[in-house]
Amino acid sequence: MIYSNSLIYIEIHESEIPWLKVFTQAPRKEFSQCSRDEKENIWEALDIIEKAMINYFIPTKVNIASFGNMLPQVHWHIMARFEGDSYFPEPMWGVKQRIGDVKIAPMEPFIEDLKAILASRLTAS
Amino acid sequence: MIYSNSLIYIEIHESEIPWLKVFTQAPRKEFSQCSRDEKENIWEALDIIEKAMINYFIPTKVNIASFGNMLPQVHWHIMARFEGDSYFPEPMWGVKQRIGDVKIAPMEPFIEDLKAILASRLTAS
Repeated sequence: MIYSNSLIYIEIHESEIPWLKVFTQAPRKEFSQCSRDEKENIWEALDIIEKAMINYFIPTKVNIASFGNMLPQVHWHIMARFEGDSYFPEPMWGVKQRIGDVKIAPMEPFIEDLKAILASRLTAS
Repeated sequence: MIYSNSLIYIEIHESEIPWLKVFTQAPRKEFSQCSRDEKENIWEALDIIEKAMINYFIPTKVNIASFGNMLPQVHWHIMARFEGDSYFPEPMWGVKQRIGDVKIAPMEPFIEDLKAILASRLTAS
């Protein structure tokens, strides 16, 4: 867990690429069933994370997705993708294309800075 | 094309399941690079489409995703998923699970109603 407020929390998903997940605290099956505040907190979190990923990792593309078919609890995936990662240009749920071989900057400084940005920019009632 | 304003347009993606795509009119690579108005129009469109899909198709789950790895132009996928569709519970980009066999309500009345809702609810400068 790298961030939590009364509405959402954010976790790291272990992967060869930088990959975070944003959850609602309350049980919500579909995103449209979230409150206005929950939706806005999630969009703001995804916006902050995407910009931070672009600045720090310089990825080929950022991917965002919300499925919840196995776990029907609203959660969003946000991933920094690179041309040489194992699945590019497929989604991370697609057919493996190769053995990933990408030099990616270390996660720890990114997470430390991101925690500070989230704490200062995200507000929840 | 089922909807268009100055900021976004919406298309049907041909599939065994109800699947729409929301694009920005302007060339934007990443979602965080969109203007505030573009972001809000897209979130509002996804919210309207998701609620309409839930009401009309009664899907097992709605899935939403934005990749753009092959086409780096902001576009969002929104899909009504069903337990018996060809990929469930995998994302539509995952490993095929079966030959899909789901009775899904016809698209035409859904699209006609959705056009009216989008036209009345979405506003663009």
